[in-house]
Parts: sequence; C-alpha cells; structure tokens
Amino acid sequence: MSKQKPTLPKGMRDFGPEVMIRRNYIFNIIKATFEKFGYLPLETPAMENLSVLTGTYGEEGDKLLYKVLNSGDFLSKTKQEDIDQGARKLAPKITEKGLKYDLTVPFARYVAMNRHDIAFPFKRYQIQPVWRADRPQRGRYREFYQCDADVVGTKSLICEAEIVLMINEVFEKLGITDYEIKINNRKILTGIAEVINEADKVNDLCIAIDKLDKIGIDKVEEELKNRGFSDKSVTEMRPLLNVKGNNTEKLDALKSNMESSVLGTMGVNEILEVFDIIKIFNANNNNDNHVVFDATLARGLSYYTGCIFEVKVNNVSIGSVSGGGRYDDLTGVFGLADMSGVGFSFGVDRLYDVIEALDLFPKENLISTQVMIVNFDKESALYSMGILKKLRDAGIKSELYPDSAKLKKQMTYANKKAIPFVLLIGANEIATEKLTLKNMHEGSQETLKIEAIISKF
Amino acid sequence: MSKQKPTLPKGMRDFGPEVMIRRNYIFNIIKATFEKFGYLPLETPAMENLSVLTGTYGEEGDKLLYKVLNSGDFLSKTKQEDIDQGARKLAPKITEKGLKYDLTVPFARYVAMNRHDIAFPFKRYQIQPVWRADRPQRGRYREFYQCDADVVGTKSLICEAEIVLMINEVFEKLGITDYEIKINNRKILTGIAEVINEADKVNDLCIAIDKLDKIGIDKVEEELKNRGFSDKSVTEMRPLLNVKGNNTEKLDALKSNMESSVLGTMGVNEILEVFDIIKIFNANNNNDNHVVFDATLARGLSYYTGCIFEVKVNNVSIGSVSGGGRYDDLTGVFGLADMSGVGFSFGVDRLYDVIEALDLFPKENLISTQVMIVNFDKESALYSMGILKKLRDAGIKSELYPDSAKLKKQMTYANKKAIPFVLLIGANEIATEKLTLKNMHEGSQETLKIEAIISKF
Repeated sequence: MSKQKPTLPKGMRDFGPEVMIRRNYIFNIIKATFEKFGYLPLETPAMENLSVLTGTYGEEGDKLLYKVLNSGDFLSKTKQEDIDQGARKLAPKITEKGLKYDLTVPFARYVAMNRHDIAFPFKRYQIQPVWRADRPQRGRYREFYQCDADVVGTKSLICEAEIVLMINEVFEKLGITDYEIKINNRKILTGIAEVINEADKVNDLCIAIDKLDKIGIDKVEEELKNRGFSDKSVTEMRPLLNVKGNNTEKLDALKSNMESSVLGTMGVNEILEVFDIIKIFNANNNNDNHVVFDATLARGLSYYTGCIFEVKVNNVSIGSVSGGGRYDDLTGVFGLADMSGVGFSFGVDRLYDVIEALDLFPKENLISTQVMIVNFDKESALYSMGILKKLRDAGIKSELYPDSAKLKKQMTYANKKAIPFVLLIGANEIATEKLTLKNMHEGSQETLKIEAIISKF
Repeated sequence: MSKQKPTLPKGMRDFGPEVMIRRNYIFNIIKATFEKFGYLPLETPAMENLSVLTGTYGEEGDKLLYKVLNSGDFLSKTKQEDIDQGARKLAPKITEKGLKYDLTVPFARYVAMNRHDIAFPFKRYQIQPVWRADRPQRGRYREFYQCDADVVGTKSLICEAEIVLMINEVFEKLGITDYEIKINNRKILTGIAEVINEADKVNDLCIAIDKLDKIGIDKVEEELKNRGFSDKSVTEMRPLLNVKGNNTEKLDALKSNMESSVLGTMGVNEILEVFDIIKIFNANNNNDNHVVFDATLARGLSYYTGCIFEVKVNNVSIGSVSGGGRYDDLTGVFGLADMSGVGFSFGVDRLYDVIEALDLFPKENLISTQVMIVNFDKESALYSMGILKKLRDAGIKSELYPDSAKLKKQMTYANKKAIPFVLLIGANEIATEKLTLKNMHEGSQETLKIEAIISKF
C-alpha cells in the first residue's frame, strides 16, 4: 500500500495553528461565560454503546451514526444467513459501539447513570466533537464541535433568562452587536393548535412552521393542508402567527386570542416572566437584550416543551449560530423520569465564519509567539539563551530560531508565524547589551536593554 | 430495546465536573508551557483513512486499531468469498477509516500534506484523545488523551535542551519536585553494539534493554543470548551499560570506551552539548534540572535515532509520566524525506494520579462557582438578581439557586459543588443592604455590603 499521497477522510478537517488560535479564542469566551454562570465542564467518551444511541434520533439520524467495528474475529459468532442478507442484517452483529451524534444523549445517559452522585439542579457544559455520516457540503462537516450548556432538575424560568444573558455576554465579548435572539414557547404553538381546533396535530404544525424561513407562508399553509389541517383552521391560524408590534404588544394580542387554551396562556405567561427576570437583572443599565418574540419559531426537534430560542446575526447570510430550549423529559428513556431542563448550544463553525465575515477577530490578542530571536551564529545563540530565559521568566512567549540559517529564511519564518517582534543580537549588541528590537508590523526598530524590552510587553 | 440501564463501553470514561476541573488544571499548565516555548496548537480529526494508519504501528498495533464501518450498504460491493473467509478478509472490504491510535502519525500526515504552507521548523503541540482496542485494565483505557509537542525541520540540539526546560517548568508549576529526567541517545546504544561487535543487532539490544526495569540485568542478558549475542559480547557490554559516577563521569567513561565507534562518540557528544545548552539557559540560577544520563534507557519504539527521554516521579509507583526523543524520518512514509525532529509527550492520566497521590492539587484554585446566593422566596430572588449581576460583572463566578427550595437542600447543593461562599439575602438583608456571607470551609459568616463582598475576591 502506497502512502505517498495521504488524504483526509471526506468531510473531516485539520485545524492548523492559525485556525486553532482563533477557534480557541471563541471557545475560551464561551467557556468563561458558562463558568461565570455556574456551569461546570463534563466530557463523555467519543464512543457510546449503540443501544444508547440508536432509536433516539429518528430513522434518519440512525442512518447517520458512525458505527465502530467490534475488534477481534467479529464474524465468528455471526450466522451465514445474516451475512447473506447484506449490510442491514450484518451490521448489528459486527458492531456494538458508535461515535456520538450529539452531546445531549450522552449527557442524558450520564445523568441517568450518576443520578445518586449529582447535585441537582445540575448545570453542565460540554464542548466536544460529534460525528455524522452526512453528505459533506459547504459548511457541513462529518466531524464538528458542539458547545452545549444545560441545566436539569429545575423548572425555574431564571434559567431561561440566564441563557439570554449568556448569549448577550458571549456576543458582547466577541464584538457581535447586530443580532436577534428569537424566543417562542412550544406551549404557545400548542395553544395555537388548540385554538384552531387542530390540537392533535401540534407536531405537524411545528414541522411545517419550521420551514417558514425557507419556503414562505404560502407553502407552509399548503403543507399544513396536506397534513390534514382544514382550510378554516389554516385561515384562523394566519393572524395568530402574524401578530404585530413590539414584544409586549405581540404577547398581549396572542394572550387575548388564546384565553380558551390553558397551555397557550401558560406559554405566553412564561415568556412574559422570562422578560421580567431579564429586566430585573439589567435594572441599572438600559441594555438591549436583543430578544424578539416570534410566534413562528418552532425548532424542528420534537422534545422541546417550553421556551425555545434561536439566534441569528443580522447582515451575515449564515443560519442560526445558537439555539436551544426547555424539555420536560431528558432522561425518561434511560429510566429516570421527570427530569426537566433547559439548554442551548453555540455553533462554533458558524460563529467562526460570522466573526471572520465581520472582521472581528482581534489582531493583537491572537498572537502565538510574541518574540523571535534571530540566530546569527553560535556566539549569538549562546548569548541569546540567557535573554530567552529572561523573556520567558517574564511570561513572554518567545523562541530562538534553532539554526543559524540565512537571515531571510528566519524572517520569513517569523512572518509566516505572525510573530510581531523580532530580536536581533549580533556582536555589537552583545558588547553594548543593547538589543535591536524589530517591530514586524511597522518595520521600525529600536535599540534597548533587555529590561526595557520586557517592560514593553 | 430497553434503555433502562445504560452503560459505558468498556475501557471508556466519563469525566465529571470535579475531575474535569483537575484535568483542565493540568492541561492548562502544559499548554501555557508549550506556548511559552513557541509551540502552536494543532488538531486533526478523530478518524483517519486506514491507508494512513495501518502498517505504521506494527502487526500488534494494527490489531488494536478501532475501525469504523463504511456507511450505506457497505456489503453490496463485497464478494461472497470474502465474507466466507471471516473477519480478517471481510474487514478491509467494509471499513476504510479508523480512529487515530496516536498523535504522531496524524501529525506526520499533516506535515506531508501541508509541506508547502508550513513555516519550518514547525513547532506544534497537540492535545487530543486517541483510541486503542486494548484489553482494559487498571490505568489502561481504550480512550485516553495524549499531550504531544514536536518540532520538525531542524536538527538543532537547542530543541532537546528546551524539552528538558519545558518538563522542568511543567513540574515546577504542578509542584512536583522529586523526579528524574532520564536521558540517553540511540547513537550510544548503536555505539555499544558496534564496540561489542554486534552492530547488526541494535534493535535487539534496544528491545531487550527496554525490559531492564521489569526483569533485571540477568534476564536481559539471557534474552540477548537468545537473540544471538555471543557470550563474549554480553560480557563486554555489561561494564558499558553500568558506568558509574555523575553525568559527566559516566559520559567520559563511555566516550573513552567508544572511540572506535563514530556514531557512539557522536551520541555522547550530543548529550554533552545538550547539557551545555541547559547550563547556559540557567546560567544565573543554580537550578537542578533533574537530568540523569542513563545508558540503559532504550525506549521501545524503533523510530528514535538521537536523544531519548523518560521522566519518572520518585516515591510514586507509577510508570513514566513523560517521554520522547529525536527521530530522523518522520514523514518518509508519506513521501517527504529528511524531516528530522524531536518530540515528547505527557501522560495526563498518570500525571493526574501522581498529583493526587502526592496531594498536590491546589485546594483554592480549583474552584468552579465562587458564590451561591440562597433563594429564600420570590422577593429575595428578585433582589438577588441585581446582586448576581454585580458579582458577575466583577468577574466572579456566581449563581442564584434557581428554586426557593428548603435551605438544607440548597446548602447541600453548595457543598456538593464545593462552592466556597454562600450569600444569604433575607428581608433583613434587603432592608439594610448588608448581606450575610457564609464561608463554607470555616463555617463563619459576616455581614457586608455588596461592594465589600466584591472587593474580598
């Protein structure tokens, strides 16, 4: 087998230093925010037993699971008739583990397994890759990071309000100012279905409305009719989805149209309470929290039962960069009932693209090595080691070019690595103890003692 | 399929918050040190093409690779005769990707693929999990993190010296003081083989000597004889492996016994030069660098060609916690010749155990949430939100218990989460604006304005 031209598996990526430093910049801001709000880190293995993974993501999801072959002679226990029937029959016999598809199911599995040790309400965040055997395309990868925070074991709406505050904080730190946090409540969608006498078709309503952005209201109504909604109900639904005004006006309008639905009214009240809590948190500053009530927000996944969120950055044509919601039954499938929680996640690949599109990556802070010392010759190198030690003892990321290569080669290295300062130490500098510091951005240079150089940083 | 009792795959682990915080403490120290020395982060995907992975780790390693099943109807292109011949014949037809077994091969693959964009010498670090279908046992897992730093594209011995300095720095920051960095050079082992006229059996020598710690010198000599070493050569070898004195004395003794071997002499000189460079780096402080020359250090893997390292913590019965060495041909198998480099890695699971055994995890710094506010009732909660905002704006990790549960339940939560301070805000506190701050360690409490509380942190 020739390895002369190695390749990456389709849909998978290397992250070289330049990209890693920027990704870490995003991760660190998200992590710091999660922790400031009392969320703690959790990591689960890449592999889960297929018995945990399958049947949770629907038939479509099951197809996208990466399955790991059993080790050893996995066929010895397999019957010929299973093999004869092809992949579908054979797979369950030769594979018992799969790569995780999201962070929610492993989290639920962890909570169920550790229910007796966990201090509830359990606030955890989890930043790890997941894998999906999806058809790769622009912006869709087979391995990508998810960035989740969830709190389970409480129904308090303070948690919903804090999710808004966390999104505000992350975006403020990233420098993203023009964005919208859409909020809705699944109970409102249920209320709408009840009010229009289609109470048994809430899921169809959610699935159809979820496509509104893509296909428009006419096609959504057509789909609803195809899914068995009466013409009358669709006509009655239109004004409910289309309430106008600011958040309070929209919610008031819905409320008065929904008095007959207990759940619908509850949904409106929950959102109003979340708004109140946010207001109290920010009593002293007139922060715009970017929250917009949107009765047409549905979010595809069906396990949400309360408030739902979705975040879009304006003027950048990238889908939602964050989303989440409340669910009433995270762990029932694992034998632990009544575990209500609320969670949300950031899409780091999309956030990266947004920050790049808006040119918001800070130029100064994303530096790796701060100073490179040029290696002129053996004498210069030996002298430089003491200087290097002083720089590093002062916490300055620095390196000595390891070989006394041509100056041009060394400067190219510094440039490629985006090192902002280069220190030149020749015979003259050694004699005077005044070192030449070159600013690579400006091209300027000055001659300074090492102490003065250190105090510059 | 019942999911009532979910389990983890054998040999895999969840890392809950308490362990994660400690692991991150170790990772952060290692990362900061790598970066201070100019190493940049790299991440490669969990999966690699099997064509990249197989044949690199020897037959034993190939067996331990986790293989990922092709998606779709992977059997449709498979011939019945392959299926009939069992797992060994079938596997290559139904799987094309595997989980990475270490970080070195993906790194080599990355360097070969990106040779035209990389600024050489390329200093990268990589901290990611790897997977091995090994028999799980105490301290051996099927998924574990590796923590590698390598520099390729230079033969400068400054890199070897800096590896010693990085190990010193990491251990100093972790508070580990009693440890040994064993150093040897593969060229010295070649020299020994040459001097005793067994030049063609260097690999056998390395493999046998590698077992010295476990089986003792008598058994090693027995194994050498079984591997075809003459009685005379084994007798001549003994004093060479057994040189006495301090580092310089040992190296001098070896050197004078090895004048006939060009490579052996070169190996001794390389180590002497590394020692010189370390000395110059530390000219101003009489640091003990913990480096001990050991002619019997071999390191099993055969690709090393120069200096080799291994680090052991004294008085803790855990194997080596770090190791590495120089190799002359990292990427030849991928069509990129003459890529010399040197690298090392930390074993984070073992380091964790060492730090725990020596009780060196800092009690104070590993705090997650710093303050929890008790939730007495609605009025208290509403008032607390403004307080919480102030704490968080001051960068203090803090949370309000989301429900007005029984005080005991809330205090248990704070205890379990190891939150050091709890803030009690009842009607009296709201009226006086003086809040009760309870120190959970000492059990003491005091009454302070919020500004005074913030300035305490």
